[in-house]
Amino acid sequence: MTRSQGVTRQSTLAHRTRREPPAGEPSRNARILERAGYVDKLMAGVYSFLPLGLRVLRNIEDIVRDEMTAVGGNEVLMPALHPIAAWEATGRQDMPILFRTGGDTAVLGPTHEEVVTPLMAAQVASYKDLPTAVFQIQNKFRDEARPKSGLLRGREFGMKDMYSFHLSGADLETYYEQVADAYRRVFARCGLGEVTHYTYASGGDFCEFSHEFQAVTPHGEDTVYLDHGKGTAINKEILDRYTPEEIAELEPVRAIEVGNIFKLGTRFADAVGFRLPDATGVPQRIHMGCYGIGTTRLVGAIAEILSTDDAMVWPAGVAPYAVHVIPLSAQQHQRAEEVAAALHRRGHTVLLDDRPARAGAKLADADLIGIPHRAVVGARTEEGRVEHSDRLADVTRTVPVAELAQLVTAV
Amino acid sequence: MTRSQGVTRQSTLAHRTRREPPAGEPSRNARILERAGYVDKLMAGVYSFLPLGLRVLRNIEDIVRDEMTAVGGNEVLMPALHPIAAWEATGRQDMPILFRTGGDTAVLGPTHEEVVTPLMAAQVASYKDLPTAVFQIQNKFRDEARPKSGLLRGREFGMKDMYSFHLSGADLETYYEQVADAYRRVFARCGLGEVTHYTYASGGDFCEFSHEFQAVTPHGEDTVYLDHGKGTAINKEILDRYTPEEIAELEPVRAIEVGNIFKLGTRFADAVGFRLPDATGVPQRIHMGCYGIGTTRLVGAIAEILSTDDAMVWPAGVAPYAVHVIPLSAQQHQRAEEVAAALHRRGHTVLLDDRPARAGAKLADADLIGIPHRAVVGARTEEGRVEHSDRLADVTRTVPVAELAQLVTAV
Repeated sequence: MTRSQGVTRQSTLAHRTRREPPAGEPSRNARILERAGYVDKLMAGVYSFLPLGLRVLRNIEDIVRDEMTAVGGNEVLMPALHPIAAWEATGRQDMPILFRTGGDTAVLGPTHEEVVTPLMAAQVASYKDLPTAVFQIQNKFRDEARPKSGLLRGREFGMKDMYSFHLSGADLETYYEQVADAYRRVFARCGLGEVTHYTYASGGDFCEFSHEFQAVTPHGEDTVYLDHGKGTAINKEILDRYTPEEIAELEPVRAIEVGNIFKLGTRFADAVGFRLPDATGVPQRIHMGCYGIGTTRLVGAIAEILSTDDAMVWPAGVAPYAVHVIPLSAQQHQRAEEVAAALHRRGHTVLLDDRPARAGAKLADADLIGIPHRAVVGARTEEGRVEHSDRLADVTRTVPVAELAQLVTAV
Repeated sequence: MTRSQGVTRQSTLAHRTRREPPAGEPSRNARILERAGYVDKLMAGVYSFLPLGLRVLRNIEDIVRDEMTAVGGNEVLMPALHPIAAWEATGRQDMPILFRTGGDTAVLGPTHEEVVTPLMAAQVASYKDLPTAVFQIQNKFRDEARPKSGLLRGREFGMKDMYSFHLSGADLETYYEQVADAYRRVFARCGLGEVTHYTYASGGDFCEFSHEFQAVTPHGEDTVYLDHGKGTAINKEILDRYTPEEIAELEPVRAIEVGNIFKLGTRFADAVGFRLPDATGVPQRIHMGCYGIGTTRLVGAIAEILSTDDAMVWPAGVAPYAVHVIPLSAQQHQRAEEVAAALHRRGHTVLLDDRPARAGAKLADADLIGIPHRAVVGARTEEGRVEHSDRLADVTRTVPVAELAQLVTAV
């Protein structure tokens, strides 16, 4: 256990792969992520993130943070433990998914409108401070009856939730569209841009429509209806608003919900008496939007969509490392160290498989781990060269070490 | 709400200071942190972190992460929600501070021996993988009866907890001393190096001594006895192991516990049957160490120790920004923007007070906010110069803008 030189040596990582997926696990994402040593299941819907899984999660969080900051979001961090009184104030204290604790004096937050609304009522001094938005990346708790979708439906899960505050519904509309664009950038950077569809869903009691971002995959939990003409989709819960002729034009597909955005109107601000006098001194109601992305769910969704039974390939933006450097035997260790050091000097993150394992076992593990670039040094690899695989492009060729760093897209 | 240019404009921050500390709040750290707009109290012992407070917390987390990685710690992330069965396995299911939930099927983790031990038993394939250590930075839950010390004793609080695994007690001893040194570096980088003392405490059922890191302050919750000769301290719980003559040599002082380290021996590994065959095939018991730092408590401890009633000064390593740039009136806004941009180009983080507020209000807020370097631009400040205050050194002088960036210690 010595100071890392920027290159992670696989022998020092608290990590192992498994020959088989966990017994009795129906979820595709959980099977591959547990087998590859990214996560460990503690109980149904509750996972530990191991070192590689945590690196993927942090990369996703950084992308989300970057895009929320770009639309003016202020990052904050609210607690998971909420006084029950906050939920009584909005009348949502009997939601069945609420975990109660502390002798029923507290609940574990499944969402944060009950906390963020009074918080911002205290922080916002004047109508001139609006519009404003705050977001957090924090663990949520929902007592799901039968969580069986791996990281897609957790009882404890990571989420980015943003809340915006406006003096009018029109101002909320404008901001809502900005956030929708930011969400498109998030999913594109996470490698799901092409499969993710902006989907009209029910607005419930709050508004006509809410919107989901649905990533199409044969194993998705949801069914959505693609409208190829408009480039959008429709959630089945609002299908009854369409005529049979319209519905006949739509393509039903399975999908995973990776984000959702919602106009809350004045419901929560009204519940806690949050109003602000405008320039003329007349108290104005406050309109809110809320914007969610399940960060741990996104780890699961990417794994679900971009894996086979025995292999994963992470998109460059979320991969735990940019390059996996693999000497096929102990004789190539020194050369592999030099390759890793050269990549590191060029700013790439590197996992070096320095374990005293057989070549076949190392390569099978590398397939499971799914780092997008692989640099193999074998006995037959000429001095000064490596066998480079771009696993997303599925291209392998032998290149000079000096060229390798340029072939690897910087993460 | 537009993309941040790297300089944070105070007008865009979800932040306000208060004229008065919160009514009825006895805790010194909570009074200053709430008044300065760093945190907001949701319920007793449960706080939200506002943008400035979260930046301080993240800086502390980064320091802790850096030093734990430097002693070979692997970062992981375990859940807060634990099955009650895990606590029954170690016989600790009746600890009074446990929050129970999910109809008594689960508890909220006050610590993670119950989770990390079986997790590592599954991850560690061979005795050759030891020693190893994993750590996380994650929220803990403890149902304290009367939390009244602000961020020093929370019911939900951020903590770094590391766990190490060894084949012998001697190997644990060696690593334990390495971690103790890493802890000294953490507290030095957080600005508490000089006041923090390595303190012998009871080892409970586990070992002869555990060790606390106690930061001396007149308002501390604990009493410790400084041994000036040895440069260490003694917790009062082990005072009875010393003779009256020895005790007379010690100086009793008040202090805040900012970290603790503990040799757990084989207690937890034995409870879950975690053993490993050694090179000769003989199963060996596994020795564990655990190492805690309360990250949110450290925010509170620094504020408690480095504040007066109306002002704070954050140490450079944890300050939310390196420089606070303050134009005294609207006429100086453009010049202040240029100063901020120049500092930013030199790699410094900058908070720019662009609010249309009175000069006196801005300066009083800046005292509360406590950024260690201040650059004021007033009507009487000559063109091309700023009034620079190094608030830790308590030195103010007018300097050319070009020199300012060099005066500011890089964070």
